[in-house]
This record gives sequence, C-alpha cells and structure tokens, in this order.
Amino acid sequence: MRQTKLFTKTTKDTPKGEEAKNAQLLIRAGFINKEMAGVYSFLPLGLRVIRKIEAIIRDEMDNTLNASEIFMPALHPLENYEKTGRDNIDVLFRTELATGRSLVLGQSHEEVVVPLAKNHIFSYRDLPVYVYQIQNKFRNELRAKSGILRGREFSMKDLYSFHVDEEDLNRYYEQSKKAYKNIFERAGIGDSTYMTFADGGTFSKYSHEFQTVTEAGEDIIHLCSDCEVAINEEIIDEQEKCPECGEKSKLVEKKAIEVGNIFKLKTKFSDAFNLTYTDEDGKEKPVYMGCYGIGVGRLMGAVLEVNSDKNGMIWPEEIAPYQVHLIPIGDKAREKAEEIYENFDQEILYDDRDTSVGDKFADADLMGIPYRVVISDKTLKKDSVEIKKRSEEEEKLVKIDNLQSYV
Amino acid sequence: MRQTKLFTKTTKDTPKGEEAKNAQLLIRAGFINKEMAGVYSFLPLGLRVIRKIEAIIRDEMDNTLNASEIFMPALHPLENYEKTGRDNIDVLFRTELATGRSLVLGQSHEEVVVPLAKNHIFSYRDLPVYVYQIQNKFRNELRAKSGILRGREFSMKDLYSFHVDEEDLNRYYEQSKKAYKNIFERAGIGDSTYMTFADGGTFSKYSHEFQTVTEAGEDIIHLCSDCEVAINEEIIDEQEKCPECGEKSKLVEKKAIEVGNIFKLKTKFSDAFNLTYTDEDGKEKPVYMGCYGIGVGRLMGAVLEVNSDKNGMIWPEEIAPYQVHLIPIGDKAREKAEEIYENFDQEILYDDRDTSVGDKFADADLMGIPYRVVISDKTLKKDSVEIKKRSEEEEKLVKIDNLQSYV
Repeated sequence: MRQTKLFTKTTKDTPKGEEAKNAQLLIRAGFINKEMAGVYSFLPLGLRVIRKIEAIIRDEMDNTLNASEIFMPALHPLENYEKTGRDNIDVLFRTELATGRSLVLGQSHEEVVVPLAKNHIFSYRDLPVYVYQIQNKFRNELRAKSGILRGREFSMKDLYSFHVDEEDLNRYYEQSKKAYKNIFERAGIGDSTYMTFADGGTFSKYSHEFQTVTEAGEDIIHLCSDCEVAINEEIIDEQEKCPECGEKSKLVEKKAIEVGNIFKLKTKFSDAFNLTYTDEDGKEKPVYMGCYGIGVGRLMGAVLEVNSDKNGMIWPEEIAPYQVHLIPIGDKAREKAEEIYENFDQEILYDDRDTSVGDKFADADLMGIPYRVVISDKTLKKDSVEIKKRSEEEEKLVKIDNLQSYV
Repeated sequence: MRQTKLFTKTTKDTPKGEEAKNAQLLIRAGFINKEMAGVYSFLPLGLRVIRKIEAIIRDEMDNTLNASEIFMPALHPLENYEKTGRDNIDVLFRTELATGRSLVLGQSHEEVVVPLAKNHIFSYRDLPVYVYQIQNKFRNELRAKSGILRGREFSMKDLYSFHVDEEDLNRYYEQSKKAYKNIFERAGIGDSTYMTFADGGTFSKYSHEFQTVTEAGEDIIHLCSDCEVAINEEIIDEQEKCPECGEKSKLVEKKAIEVGNIFKLKTKFSDAFNLTYTDEDGKEKPVYMGCYGIGVGRLMGAVLEVNSDKNGMIWPEEIAPYQVHLIPIGDKAREKAEEIYENFDQEILYDDRDTSVGDKFADADLMGIPYRVVISDKTLKKDSVEIKKRSEEEEKLVKIDNLQSYV
C-alpha cells in the first residue's frame, strides 16, 4: 500500500474526550474514527488488523473446534427474552417495528440461536452441533470510557455448542480452552493472558474467563504465581485458594481485561425454548449447551494496552496491518524503493509521501508495523537496507536481495 | 464438506408465512433461517454464497474503482440526521442511549461518513477519496414480504466518493457503471440486469439504478428493446423516450428488482456538515460526493428469482456455495467417492448420508450446486462418473481422472 493512497492522516494531537490509551493511539494513527463514546468506525489500517484477528479466530473455530460459521441478525424479538427472563437486562438497546412489535438489539445470541437450532436438531443423530459467528453486538453501557475495550457497538465472535449430555459438553468445553489459548498466543498476548475461574451462574459452579493483565483492565483477578491460573474477584470469597495447587498465599491481585469467556449453559436456554432431541431409545431429552465468546475489537485493544510505548503501537506480526514499513530517504533511494515495493508481496506499507524523515519515522513508530525498512544513499552503497524491528532498539543492515526472506 | 457434518436439514414443506420464492427455496434447502418477517440468519451454505458475492464486490471495488474498505457502525446520533433533514424518514429504526441521547440505526451512512471524512480531507491534495464498506443496514419496513429481496436488516455494500469538483465526480461515476456491470455479470444476472434512469432528487437530473427483470420485482421499468437501457416508472412522465435512441415506441414495461443504484450527491451532504477543502489557490471549496449501493442479500435473492426451476435453485458458478455435489450410489462407489472427496479441492459437497438415492437427487436439485457428480457400480466399470450440470438436462460420462479439470 502506498501511503499517498491511504486517505487517513496521522495526528500528533491527543484526541479530546478520549481517555483510553488504545483509542488515543488508534485515532492518532488513523486506524479508527470515533463516532461517539463507545462507537467507532474502523478505517483501512484498523480494519486490516480486525480482519487478521478474525482470520485467526476462524482458523481455530473451523479447525480446532470443527465449528460451522453462520451469521445471525442484530434485530431480536423482545418476546424471546421474556422466555429466558433476560428482558430486563439493563444493557439492552430497545427499538420497535413500524407494526409496533417490540425488539431489542442483540447483546448476545442465545435467544436467536436456540429457536434456530430447533429447526435442525431433532434426534441424537443430529448432535453435537457447533455454530459460531463474527458479528456486531450492542450493549447500552451507561459509561463507555475504555476506547475499543468496552464498546456500545462491538464485533464479537460467539460460538454455541449443542450436546446430547453434560459429558459431551464437558469434553468440548475442555477443547475450547485449547482453541482459546491458541488464539491469544497467535494474537501476541499469550504471555499475559490467563485462564480465570469466574461465576458460573445459578447452574454451573464456574465459568472461565481469559483475562489479559494490564493496568487498563477494569476487572480484578487473583493470579496464582505458580500455576498461571487466576480467580475473578467476584468469586474470591467462595474460592479463596488457587484451584490448581490449593495455595492461598501465592495469589497476587492484578488488573486485567476479559478478552474471552466460556460458559456451560447446560439446559438453561434449551429449557426456555423446549429444545429437545429424541435419544436412541426414542426418549425425549433436553439438549445441553455451551457458549464461548471473544470480543474482536476488545482483543485488538488489549493487544495495544500490552504492546505499546510512548512513541506508539507495537503490533505482533500475525495481526499487524502490514509486515514492513518501507521508508526511502533521498531521490536515488526513492527509485530503488519503488522497485522493491513493486516486486514485494502485499504486506508492505510504502511511505512514498513528500514529508520529512522525522515525520516518517514518527509515523512509523506510531503505526507500529513490525519491520521498519529504511533505504538511503548510505545503505544503497552496500546494496542494503537498514531494518529495525518495532519491538527492538537495534538496527541491522540487510542485503536487499535477502529482504523478502528476512522479514 | 461432508453433508453429514452439515447441521442444517432440508425440508419438502413450504415454510409457512413465507410468500417469496427466494426465501421459500433458501429456507427449504437450509441456506437461511427466518427470525421474523424481513430478518433472516444465514446458515453455512447461505453464508458461503454471501461470502462469494462479497468477494466479487470487493474485487471490483478494490481493483476497478480503487476504493478502500472501512467499517462503520450501525448506531448513529439522531442529531446528524437533523443536519441533513433526514430525521423524519419513515423507515428509520429509533433507539436511545442509557444517557438519553437519541439514536437511529443506520439505513445508509452519509450522516456518518461525511463527519468522518472531515477528519481526513483538508486540501485538494487529499482528494479524491473513495471508501466503501459491507455492513448491515436497518430499514423499518411496514411490510416485508419479499424474502431477502427487501429486508428490515440486510447486508449492503455502500461506496462513497469525494471529489474536488463535479467533473471529477462525473468521471468516477462513469467508471462505477463499469464496475457495477462487471459485478452483475460475474454474479450470473448480467443478461437480465439493465441500467435504469431514475429520479436524481432535487440536485441531479437522474440517478441510475441497476434493475434485474423478474416477475418477483416490486419496481416497474420501461426497457428499450434496442438499447438495453431502461427508465424507472417514477420518471416516465418526464422522460417519455429512451434516453439513448430517443424512441418511445421501443419501450416495454417490465417488473424488476433494483439490485444496485448510483447517485450523484454533489454537495448536498458536504454542505450539511460543512465538508470543504482548500484548493491550489488557498480558496475554501465544497467537496463533491457520489454514493453507490448494492444490496448483498438482495442480489442473492435476485439471482434465485432469475435462476431457479420447480425443483430448486440453480446457482451461477462464481457464487455457488460449492462447485460439485458428489453423490455415491452403492458401497463400492462410496469407497471411491471417499477417495475423490479427500483428494479434491475444497469446492465439493459430498453427500455421505445414509439416505435414499431419490432424496439425494431431490436435495441436489433443491440446493442447486452447478455440477452433480454421481458415482455408481455402473460408472465405476468405466472408471467414470456421471456429470449433470444443474442448468442442463443431459448427463455425461467423464473419466474420474478428468473430473478435476472438467468442472
């Protein structure tokens, strides 16, 4: 991508009314645009990051969890929520049809996916079923001050699993933990993200969250320094010890962001809609369910809260908008840069703007693309470019011929 | 894809309360699920069609029109609509923030994209700008009886262009006609889709629609049998003759579906938000705009209204969910089918179910995958499979070794 073709501009000014570091950096770098508190547009560079996170999630859903992708709507009939007793959740956005029918905007999709499953699940032969979607959710938050960490409208991956019994649900639930671990590792926050025991509602002892430790977090977790599992503050009174090693003294309080959660719903929602199946003996039985969420934008924001410095963002390679930020200095270097750009694969952002070297370097730091590649008269004399990883201090001379294989 | 792994079921029953052929077929084949009138979920096979249509649209947007993809939210502040005078459109869904602020759900995005553009367009050097998105729109239709042709929530591609003057807008507008023509051709309805002159609002003489001729259409167009352009009924009193050849007698009345429209907005929306730029002489000037829409689900529905028969759907190859529907008859054939399936590329739907041959054939016709490939003891004796195109009557014996290159 030629930077002159990128319609977005960077700015040095901190956007007013924006307290969260993630949103400040993303707005300054032209990755997102703020429409109102908790509601953002994703611009070309930001959307590329979102698409890469989505690709990781789809890969793990399709291949590790054998799930099928679907796409459900945001408009839900209120009466479905009356059936599940969730019609008075305070974060529901409400609207109505021209015909007067009351609707809510989906903040989750149990109330839609269960009636849908009723049209396709009849017998034990039809189970298990695993379906997921990546789609925008709506939550009417009273305050929305955490940038893309807590949006009023936000993209989420939600997976729903349907099983013949609790045992099969448990099997899949354990498998989902692996997929989630893979996702956070591939997105570059594996080291700071911990499985966390949380409230399981009225029907399960625990649910599990995936919490990324950062000062920007709105949650408090108690992390076992030995076992690398944590307990959410909300259940610390019941569960005072590490669930793995049984030690209390090793728990350390940390601020964290919930980037994912998995929940055994058991028969709560199937009962509400009478979702049942016929077993091998012709007996009607309730379907067991699990649900598994990841906030796509929130994950992007969490990555930034963990991976950034005073100069800007530092993108992990697998979710970076581009792999290489190519910067020519001087006219001769410019010619060579054009040649490199034309012959390189698509993962290159080429700063072909007529701006100062200082501005180019400042923007490269702000945008946080993993490899900054500078080409100048000095490096050209050695048939080389100067490569600096955004996450490191040192620069390195690399032969132009070796560039593609190096990055 | 193994059909046993597809959680959706087909049904012979016409879904009740569904009048539109497109939705009847899609529901029966398990491509979509109806949540309420005008609101559908896309299931795995339906979502594959949507993704293929999106891929065509993205290709034409990126490469023919040099546009950049972005993603804007559905929650819009009502005050933006007060500025453009569109706050009383009757199809607006309304909602409000917990703080009391009035919102509407986006039925189009001029009111969001123009304030966004103000953050990135300052000088003539920043123009032109072309941005598009593929995103769900909301329209509070009083009646929604046309299946996915007219939804209350529906996916749309909307492109917005920004220019220094009317001349540059005109240039891009003409280019957009070519991209639109390509899209409808690639989606398989090029032959029945016509550019149609329509009302241009208070600021342009005409806008242009792309209308697909079918009995299911809710629009009336007057099609010139010579020039293959049409006039929308709404302006037939002003524009009585074919705009190309000037003949009146050649106009024929047809029912049609509007699958796309392009519109010169000129400065209507830039004026409302004071979107201006500084020209080469330092003078402040208004930005000229165009907008260009395509309903993704509507296009899918239009394809079906044109391409289907009494047995089911007939998908054009470029948007079919799979290219091949592989059906084994008998145990020996089953073994060979497994082998073919494992070695073939991904574009195969493999009917590995234990159902009757009659059911398999009926489902293959209903689902409308372009190539039905039957393998049986009889064809195996000739190292062959029997291939039937869904759009043709004749079957053909083809050597198994030639299968991949044949389809």
